[in-house]
Amino acid sequence: MAKNNEKMVEQITSMEVDFAQWYTDVVKKAELVDYSGVKGCMVIRPYGYAIWENIQKDLDRRFKELGHENVYMPMFIPESLLQKEKDHVEGFAPECAIVTIGGGNTLSERLIVRPTSETLFCEHYRNIIQSYRDLPKLYNQWCNVVRWEKTTRPFLRTSEFLWQEGHTMHETEEEAREETQRMLKVYEDFYAEALAIPAYTGKKTEKEKFAGAEETYTIEPMMHNGVALQGGTSHYFGDGFARAFDITYTARDNTQKYPHQTSWGVSTRSIGAIIMTHGDDNGLILPPAVAPIQVVIIPVAQHKEGVLEKANELKNELAKSFRVKLDDSDNSTGWKFSQYEMKGVPLRLEIGPRDIENNSCVLVSRVTREKTFVSLDNLTEAVKEALKQVHDELYNRALENRKNRTYTATSHEEFLQIAKEKSGYIKAMWCGETACEEQLKDETGGVKSRCIPFVEDHLSDVCVCCGKPAKHMVIWGRQY
Amino acid sequence: MAKNNEKMVEQITSMEVDFAQWYTDVVKKAELVDYSGVKGCMVIRPYGYAIWENIQKDLDRRFKELGHENVYMPMFIPESLLQKEKDHVEGFAPECAIVTIGGGNTLSERLIVRPTSETLFCEHYRNIIQSYRDLPKLYNQWCNVVRWEKTTRPFLRTSEFLWQEGHTMHETEEEAREETQRMLKVYEDFYAEALAIPAYTGKKTEKEKFAGAEETYTIEPMMHNGVALQGGTSHYFGDGFARAFDITYTARDNTQKYPHQTSWGVSTRSIGAIIMTHGDDNGLILPPAVAPIQVVIIPVAQHKEGVLEKANELKNELAKSFRVKLDDSDNSTGWKFSQYEMKGVPLRLEIGPRDIENNSCVLVSRVTREKTFVSLDNLTEAVKEALKQVHDELYNRALENRKNRTYTATSHEEFLQIAKEKSGYIKAMWCGETACEEQLKDETGGVKSRCIPFVEDHLSDVCVCCGKPAKHMVIWGRQY
Repeated sequence: MAKNNEKMVEQITSMEVDFAQWYTDVVKKAELVDYSGVKGCMVIRPYGYAIWENIQKDLDRRFKELGHENVYMPMFIPESLLQKEKDHVEGFAPECAIVTIGGGNTLSERLIVRPTSETLFCEHYRNIIQSYRDLPKLYNQWCNVVRWEKTTRPFLRTSEFLWQEGHTMHETEEEAREETQRMLKVYEDFYAEALAIPAYTGKKTEKEKFAGAEETYTIEPMMHNGVALQGGTSHYFGDGFARAFDITYTARDNTQKYPHQTSWGVSTRSIGAIIMTHGDDNGLILPPAVAPIQVVIIPVAQHKEGVLEKANELKNELAKSFRVKLDDSDNSTGWKFSQYEMKGVPLRLEIGPRDIENNSCVLVSRVTREKTFVSLDNLTEAVKEALKQVHDELYNRALENRKNRTYTATSHEEFLQIAKEKSGYIKAMWCGETACEEQLKDETGGVKSRCIPFVEDHLSDVCVCCGKPAKHMVIWGRQY
Repeated sequence: MAKNNEKMVEQITSMEVDFAQWYTDVVKKAELVDYSGVKGCMVIRPYGYAIWENIQKDLDRRFKELGHENVYMPMFIPESLLQKEKDHVEGFAPECAIVTIGGGNTLSERLIVRPTSETLFCEHYRNIIQSYRDLPKLYNQWCNVVRWEKTTRPFLRTSEFLWQEGHTMHETEEEAREETQRMLKVYEDFYAEALAIPAYTGKKTEKEKFAGAEETYTIEPMMHNGVALQGGTSHYFGDGFARAFDITYTARDNTQKYPHQTSWGVSTRSIGAIIMTHGDDNGLILPPAVAPIQVVIIPVAQHKEGVLEKANELKNELAKSFRVKLDDSDNSTGWKFSQYEMKGVPLRLEIGPRDIENNSCVLVSRVTREKTFVSLDNLTEAVKEALKQVHDELYNRALENRKNRTYTATSHEEFLQIAKEKSGYIKAMWCGETACEEQLKDETGGVKSRCIPFVEDHLSDVCVCCGKPAKHMVIWGRQY
């Protein structure tokens, strides 16, 4: 029975009724964020930040295994520095936050709060790259960036967000192109292995590529409601920035050459992807690899002799291998069940007097909510297996959803009809012209090219929009 | 013999000749930082940032063991929010960087780039603290902050720097005061155990305390040249901010009360403390606990059969327990010795053909530069012991330096004479009046009160400045 002073686990809006409201409810009720008085900025609360810490640990390990090193660049960019690469400044100028006053005085040169740090890395690279022996440079930084946004939503679109940005310099075009692909693959693996999220990967069209890049590659997971979220990008710059910043090195043949550059990033948006890919009407569901609590132990009839003692024993045993929490508060068992479902804890372990008699306990998957009785002998193995199962269930469910929500259009009419009636991805042929992308976006009220996948299906010979010869199959969809 | 294309390890200025230039040389030659085109901001290079990562890991573990949780607050503070606590805004307003333009428009309210985040934490705490059951809140954040500086030096004083800031809220004054002391002790232990730096701790005078705090406690390590560096601070706020921000909670007796607050921080200045406490004329010396490379293996006569093979074998063995680097480049052995001395690697392991014959190798401490021959059996134990010895040597050497540079003054004349002739700390009695602090500072050109230590010596009955009855013994000194 609920006690007098017990907080209620409040109901959230059903995702089928109002997905946007469901999202807002989840981030709030699962205590991931708080809104701040600063327009467009969020407070990331302990439970949300712990997810980010686990994401950081996982990605940072992958980066370092490949030889990347972390650095820290200033967060201010002098306006003249940002302006050195023309396409880049054009892309970012409209969303900049600008410092004009410092130490009580109007600054002689305005400072941009970094929206991304290519220009700062280039300035530094010019100082430290002299010879081919100094290459490659494989740098990464974890930091905050600011891109001014009119309408914002926690994790998905905020004026300030946290991310990592890798910036590398290479001797040859070939090596830089390999790095661009390699890091895209790191992101793809990270999304699959750590976040249990399958994703299409491919190349962005000219229209959608990063400001200043020659090519942008992207990872495009589909959210539960069929809308895309750009999960991470990897850019190949050629030597455009190197030329703009006058970065040269003495090559093996003793000539002066420009190095070739990449950059790649994943941000706190990835937490939004987790929420919207896996969550359900009971709240958040977290993939085990990044869940702050992997197993929550709920004692049943905890006032009975021996229950709490046993629960503590199990906690100590499991804590050697997993992130475990024992909730022995005096809240009701029902409240606890709801609370940790809301918080998306992948696995619940129930232990009561009868279980103890039977030398067993109950494991409940957050995904299927199915109960399994397992022996207390080899509990660590059983929990490990159950967590792996949660991961696989999440991944497969997301894959199934994507399959169900991926459509094919071979005519203009069909494209518009699917865009109108369905929410998901559309595979369709494209002529390569920006005009057709813009027309389709306008006609559908927001369906844009997500990417040109590495393996294209041959759906027809002509562009779904203009009927001219097709150059590529493109995956299209609405986006967050 | 040095090869043709080999870079030279350049000489640095001797610390006895010019300590400031020595410092600048070391941060540059050890590749800790690069200067950036952004006034007062530095680039932290991989080797410097790796030290910071080790510092973060160590401190973060200590915080979490005591129940603290990490969060992330916005980096912008609306001007009206900063102004809510009067003393606080007065202290920080002169050094603020201010964003006045966002997304192309002049902002209706100016945004301060956080110099510290008490106000943001208070705004959030007002939202989430309702009852005594919500207390204590033990939050910390790792982030960048900006305090506009006129003259800057890498790590010691930069307009932007990295730090952690803990912000906690408690039911009672007693509990908050305990937290303030507890975190000061964490810092003291961290400096001693991780950085091998002994430090005086104590209370700041009214004049020197944090803007808005009731009491500020500080850790004040002495640098090699006798100058103090404020290594970290811990503040007790009482309920001043809680009142200003209208944060109340329902207490156990069902009345509305204001919670009691603390904050505490350590920054990238701690890297400056490492450099200036331990370094010598051969460069940096890093305490093993935070050294990016703890052991560097240098093969001797590496072209001879079996040498590189053995060196790799040792590397793989040691890498299980330590951060190890094997330098098998074709630079000369002499160059390598100098290079890793410059970078402050605590322990060098030399292995050559004769060593292999003898089933031994040579360990060289970066501090004493003494060679020890050790057996390859139990190498891990020997290295562990040698690293512990490096730590102890560093700590004891710093302690000895502090002892030699700590003076006692019982008269005004004596105080001024020591301040003029010596560089170090002066212990002297003080009446408690700010006027005397200011007079001593002016007369000496910068000697300020460091702290009132927890255990005071009774040196005399009267203030060293005005001769009135003394209230405290104060430790005085110049500062970075």
